[in-house]
Amino acid sequence: MAEQQQNLASLDSSIMDRLPSYSSTLFEAKTQKQLTFETIAKHLGRSEVAVAAIFYGQARASPEDVAGLTHLLGISTESNVASQMMGFPDRGRAGPMPPVEPLIYRLYEIVQNYGYAFKAVMNEKFGDGIMSAICFNSKVEKEVDETGAAWVVITLKGKWLPFTRF
Amino acid sequence: MAEQQQNLASLDSSIMDRLPSYSSTLFEAKTQKQLTFETIAKHLGRSEVAVAAIFYGQARASPEDVAGLTHLLGISTESNVASQMMGFPDRGRAGPMPPVEPLIYRLYEIVQNYGYAFKAVMNEKFGDGIMSAICFNSKVEKEVDETGAAWVVITLKGKWLPFTRF
Amino acid sequence: MAEQQQNLASLDSSIMDRLPSYSSTLFEAKTQKQLTFETIAKHLGRSEVAVAAIFYGQARASPEDVAGLTHLLGISTESNVASQMMGFPDRGRAGPMPPVEPLIYRLYEIVQNYGYAFKAVMNEKFGDGIMSAICFNSKVEKEVDETGAAWVVITLKGKWLPFTRF
Amino acid sequence: MAEQQQNLASLDSSIMDRLPSYSSTLFEAKTQKQLTFETIAKHLGRSEVAVAAIFYGQARASPEDVAGLTHLLGISTESNVASQMMGFPDRGRAGPMPPVEPLIYRLYEIVQNYGYAFKAVMNEKFGDGIMSAICFNSKVEKEVDETGAAWVVITLKGKWLPFTRF
Amino acid sequence: MAEQQQNLASLDSSIMDRLPSYSSTLFEAKTQKQLTFETIAKHLGRSEVAVAAIFYGQARASPEDVAGLTHLLGISTESNVASQMMGFPDRGRAGPMPPVEPLIYRLYEIVQNYGYAFKAVMNEKFGDGIMSAICFNSKVEKEVDETGAAWVVITLKGKWLPFTRF
Amino acid sequence: MAEQQQNLASLDSSIMDRLPSYSSTLFEAKTQKQLTFETIAKHLGRSEVAVAAIFYGQARASPEDVAGLTHLLGISTESNVASQMMGFPDRGRAGPMPPVEPLIYRLYEIVQNYGYAFKAVMNEKFGDGIMSAICFNSKVEKEVDETGAAWVVITLKGKWLPFTRF
Amino acid sequence: MAEQQQNLASLDSSIMDRLPSYSSTLFEAKTQKQLTFETIAKHLGRSEVAVAAIFYGQARASPEDVAGLTHLLGISTESNVASQMMGFPDRGRAGPMPPVEPLIYRLYEIVQNYGYAFKAVMNEKFGDGIMSAICFNSKVEKEVDETGAAWVVITLKGKWLPFTRF
Amino acid sequence: MAEQQQNLASLDSSIMDRLPSYSSTLFEAKTQKQLTFETIAKHLGRSEVAVAAIFYGQARASPEDVAGLTHLLGISTESNVASQMMGFPDRGRAGPMPPVEPLIYRLYEIVQNYGYAFKAVMNEKFGDGIMSAICFNSKVEKEVDETGAAWVVITLKGKWLPFTRF
Amino acid sequence: MAEQQQNLASLDSSIMDRLPSYSSTLFEAKTQKQLTFETIAKHLGRSEVAVAAIFYGQARASPEDVAGLTHLLGISTESNVASQMMGFPDRGRAGPMPPVEPLIYRLYEIVQNYGYAFKAVMNEKFGDGIMSAICFNSKVEKEVDETGAAWVVITLKGKWLPFTRF
Amino acid sequence: MAEQQQNLASLDSSIMDRLPSYSSTLFEAKTQKQLTFETIAKHLGRSEVAVAAIFYGQARASPEDVAGLTHLLGISTESNVASQMMGFPDRGRAGPMPPVEPLIYRLYEIVQNYGYAFKAVMNEKFGDGIMSAICFNSKVEKEVDETGAAWVVITLKGKWLPFTRF
Repeated sequence: MAEQQQNLASLDSSIMDRLPSYSSTLFEAKTQKQLTFETIAKHLGRSEVAVAAIFYGQARASPEDVAGLTHLLGISTESNVASQMMGFPDRGRAGPMPPVEPLIYRLYEIVQNYGYAFKAVMNEKFGDGIMSAICFNSKVEKEVDETGAAWVVITLKGKWLPFTRF
Repeated sequence: MAEQQQNLASLDSSIMDRLPSYSSTLFEAKTQKQLTFETIAKHLGRSEVAVAAIFYGQARASPEDVAGLTHLLGISTESNVASQMMGFPDRGRAGPMPPVEPLIYRLYEIVQNYGYAFKAVMNEKFGDGIMSAICFNSKVEKEVDETGAAWVVITLKGKWLPFTRF
Repeated sequence: MAEQQQNLASLDSSIMDRLPSYSSTLFEAKTQKQLTFETIAKHLGRSEVAVAAIFYGQARASPEDVAGLTHLLGISTESNVASQMMGFPDRGRAGPMPPVEPLIYRLYEIVQNYGYAFKAVMNEKFGDGIMSAICFNSKVEKEVDETGAAWVVITLKGKWLPFTRF
Repeated sequence: MAEQQQNLASLDSSIMDRLPSYSSTLFEAKTQKQLTFETIAKHLGRSEVAVAAIFYGQARASPEDVAGLTHLLGISTESNVASQMMGFPDRGRAGPMPPVEPLIYRLYEIVQNYGYAFKAVMNEKFGDGIMSAICFNSKVEKEVDETGAAWVVITLKGKWLPFTRF
Repeated sequence: MAEQQQNLASLDSSIMDRLPSYSSTLFEAKTQKQLTFETIAKHLGRSEVAVAAIFYGQARASPEDVAGLTHLLGISTESNVASQMMGFPDRGRAGPMPPVEPLIYRLYEIVQNYGYAFKAVMNEKFGDGIMSAICFNSKVEKEVDETGAAWVVITLKGKWLPFTRF
Repeated sequence: MAEQQQNLASLDSSIMDRLPSYSSTLFEAKTQKQLTFETIAKHLGRSEVAVAAIFYGQARASPEDVAGLTHLLGISTESNVASQMMGFPDRGRAGPMPPVEPLIYRLYEIVQNYGYAFKAVMNEKFGDGIMSAICFNSKVEKEVDETGAAWVVITLKGKWLPFTRF
Repeated sequence: MAEQQQNLASLDSSIMDRLPSYSSTLFEAKTQKQLTFETIAKHLGRSEVAVAAIFYGQARASPEDVAGLTHLLGISTESNVASQMMGFPDRGRAGPMPPVEPLIYRLYEIVQNYGYAFKAVMNEKFGDGIMSAICFNSKVEKEVDETGAAWVVITLKGKWLPFTRF
Repeated sequence: MAEQQQNLASLDSSIMDRLPSYSSTLFEAKTQKQLTFETIAKHLGRSEVAVAAIFYGQARASPEDVAGLTHLLGISTESNVASQMMGFPDRGRAGPMPPVEPLIYRLYEIVQNYGYAFKAVMNEKFGDGIMSAICFNSKVEKEVDETGAAWVVITLKGKWLPFTRF
Repeated sequence: MAEQQQNLASLDSSIMDRLPSYSSTLFEAKTQKQLTFETIAKHLGRSEVAVAAIFYGQARASPEDVAGLTHLLGISTESNVASQMMGFPDRGRAGPMPPVEPLIYRLYEIVQNYGYAFKAVMNEKFGDGIMSAICFNSKVEKEVDETGAAWVVITLKGKWLPFTRF
Repeated sequence: MAEQQQNLASLDSSIMDRLPSYSSTLFEAKTQKQLTFETIAKHLGRSEVAVAAIFYGQARASPEDVAGLTHLLGISTESNVASQMMGFPDRGRAGPMPPVEPLIYRLYEIVQNYGYAFKAVMNEKFGDGIMSAICFNSKVEKEVDETGAAWVVITLKGKWLPFTRF
């Protein structure tokens, strides 16, 4: 159980002022109930990444999500939290860019080092356009190789949007 | 054939001074031979992303890659290009950060918006550490959904590195 | 009605300290009364964009606007809010630039990518000068194309100001 | 005719190194032929803004555009320019951001001052999502009011993309 | 009188933390007494610009200014405000640079666009040196032209300081 | 005469790449002919500041200015310079911001320190709006006080533009 | 004893808001108990650098560390501090970069001046890859040379990670 | 031998303009002679890090170093290179900060994450002062652990400088 | 006496959050006691610059300084202030860089304009190294020239540190 | 003599493009003639700092300086160099700010750490104003203490400019 506790993500108090106020409420209830994002995501029928994004104020909760979350986390549906979670997120301000957190920086570094390579490959496969980050989903999976080493597999899937000719 | 020509990535002259000098040589030969990264990658037995990264000076070519590339592209193995490609890349300077190219910006935006969500999910799945961007590979795939719409699927796979306790 | 609630813009608590204090009062009353900017704009005889700008402290309210708003939103005309709204806005500090919010970033990207194109076309149509952003109005409209897809149409209309010869 | 010459947009030599090399070729030919973007756009059946964007290396030319442009401007279809124009643009690097050119700055200022207002109005009209800057078109028009004063009317039209629920 | 109220400058709550604490006290009293900077300046025998600068903590008040201001604004001379106003201002932190407020940005833009022109003209008129911004005064005046249009006339007057030869 | 030579503004070679190419031609001819901006301005019937701005590529020359300048400076009217000078300036890139040149920095510092004071005074005198930097003129004058000390007097005169109500 | 007190690191109140809230609790208890990091590190069987990193919220405490620290520092194991210390650190935000603290700046300067030298030497010794900052440990030692002068010896030890070929 | 060639550090052409001109000469000769920094350092009796720093223009060569280098690399002692290498280096401009090269970034990240920890430990061990980066030396060593994995060991050794009391 | 009061430096409330909490205590007591830094410095037998630096949290107080200051300023030696002042300062965060305060900016400008000149002169006088800013002292003196004009004379004295050869 | 050569400051080729073109000419002649700034300064009757500043394009040469320099350095008085040196310097662009050169950084750090202390002491000694960096001179001296250690003594002397009351 001690081990389980350690693997529960919580909210660093020093970034709270960059997030909507319901973020702390959600994280506190999650810690209180000792729930992982995996458990919550299954309960809501959504991706773990999306659920974590809701907790950080970077994705919008639907009425069903709010109902599910308030029930699972024991938050009053009458509270402000419920209505705030259905607001339109003001995305992108959770952390500094370039990221200073080593884990997030590695993702940034991938964009920095392979950005043009991704562009060239996509342009050849799809033409002139972009991969949408809106009409988009993502998941994180764990793989263990033959030596027992763990690997992270992140899938980024976005709709291809060709530039309109006008 | 005109269509095929359009889907060949080439090098914008205005970024050449941020790349090693062999980048232009490689791209020019690629254009000359009308080769896609897919074709080149198959020839070298490597990922398209890695091959494009070599072209942009962001990955190192092995002696076998150099042999394969010079043969396929018709570059003299005696040229400086061959030896330069086996140098140690000075990575990360191909483009500005934050990216201004819309396609690359979308990848950056994913890190900006979902960075903390990725961190929280990985911490719960793996503990305290990072996904390596060095012990790492990536691929880009195309999927077409039932409506005929194209989707980009990027896979980022990196070894999990736990923080050493000291 | 649940749907209607979701489409009410509200104020993210984390940006309040960059806005005048009346912004929260206005947004709270708007949420309380379940009013859209469209409704409020019709009531005041103004553009939705202008009304939203007043709420974010980026436009000045006239005495008539204040009267209309306080009446519609149920705010005491004796309150500080009324007098503050008639102050001279200290514009431009609502969000970071470059924008990190995806919706606002797209507008920024349009300026980044098409800025010189707009300049060249305007110079040829009007001569040497600028489009005013002060003697200016704007509106947002919705169009639905033949496939049922929704399009946003933003109109930016500004007076042409030629550079004075001196 | 002197007047006509003055209203021809040309390329400032000091920004050439941020643009693809075909930009100067195109602008020089345009100056030589004394053609406005309006004339060229009509010839190609495209928007003036899009044509100017091609000249600045911010939009891709189709084979038909290349054929039309090389014919109209008297550029050899065998030249590198023709093939380069069909490459995939490396967008976004034409000018500094924040813009320092007064005309372009005014557009930036509109995003800075009205960004949140646009977001709030769009969220209420369309839900949670963004206006695409890719599946997008734009035009610039001139209006003269009853006092004889000229107004610029910029229309930005982009497809609405709702955030995917995942 | 409603009109008169509208033309009273007040202090936006969101910049208070960048100003000395007496700034709010002064602005509140000014609002309370419905006094313009013109009235206050006449009372103190100083320039309006200087008086506004005192209110924003950018200029030092002399004992006579403090006496005049506390009397006119009804502030106790025993208060901390009086002694604080005679402190040495910590100038330059009132707003961000580059300015985001459109009115202040225009002044910045004048420096950006005409900076070298001012330097060249001054060098030819005065030699090698600078115009002092310390041994300096300024005023703002209103002119109305024959068409009834209002013009702002700002005068910046600074002592010429030649570089010392050493 | 040695003294006269010293008070001729010339162009530092290290900023040439930020200016249009005709800037060097103009400055070289000016040096060659030993002409001050005062002399040139009188010849063209324009302000010294505007003439210096033309030399730095920050203002547009009219056909009459071009005729006058080429005649006075001995530049061939057939040269590219003549046509380039009638192009639309790409303003604002002559020097870095914040300025590092002490003379130009002092002007910047005035905006930094007195920006809000100017805004407050203008708002009270004119209402909600800005002083135009486009519909604008400026002059630099020399005054000598009773002690024989020289003072610079810069006049900035811009049309007042009230924010449009929409 | 006075001397001993002076050599106890404590927490500057002005950086508290960039650190997790348990940082102040730990530092206050450390000051109260007059403990050095050397003493605490010996007690926990860890490196002084790691222990100081835990205090600054830059490293994670294991359950054993928490037990040891709460016992040694007299903090209730029931307190929030205990559970917060086992959370996943949000690293990298303790101080500004570039550092302004002279001691930390010197380390930064070493990276700035010798960065490429380190890279070249490592590439020759190890091939294409990086030294991990995650699978990493560090220590600080004191040496006194023959003249009695003190020297700091910092050891940075990280696992070599070769770039994966893909 | 192919392997040996790969482990020779060379100079990326795209950073040459940030280094003194003798850098390319030295690197070219080193490549020509197939010499590692280890070999050169032994020849000169200096540290590999210092020798690499000389090649990147970040350390000064003594007359003996110049003699040794020109002899070993086959550079004429009469050449400009010899005299330039004895000039005073203009340090710190070899690469961007924050570093974008992954290997150099990891060193930067160590400073970012452990900076305050290093400071606290040094202050407790040495008092109030800094570790000198001038009266300083460094080495890079390779260790192989029991599992055969390679580790980098960087030693940073600098004189302790206490703040002067004045 | 009024004059004397005006020449007492005090602390602007808006920078307090960048300084250690004892800064306000010290400044308040200084104001209360109407003491100049000159008086305090004489009392402590230290330089005025050093004493002011202690007040701004940029220098460390010795036990004797603390005893002297608490006695002179009437601060309880039992208070937290006494122990905090003997902590290790977290230097460099008092104000923004580049400085915006005109007085501090002038010092910055001297470094900007004469930095390379200082370096060249020191290199010729001392060799390859730096002037220490740690083993360093400074004083500010007033001189009055024959015309009665006041001059500031700042002396910066630092130990010369040659780069170690390694 | 070898020693003497080493202590001659020369110009790093990589900063030439930020300096006026006469800088290289002057430095090359200085190297050719093996002259120190001390020798040149004595010849011209000026300060070493001022002479070095002329070489870096940061100070203006008088006709006498030009005569003296061209004679001493063997530069033709008919050359462009002579006339260029009498131009008005475009100061402040020689190096990046914050400085990356360790020697120059230390001066910057002094401003960063002691800036407010200098301000407070000057305000108490002189009132409200600044030390001029224009009506200014400076010198660098060497002192050797009783232990034989060398110290740098920089004197910055500037006229006190009180803020004008207006």
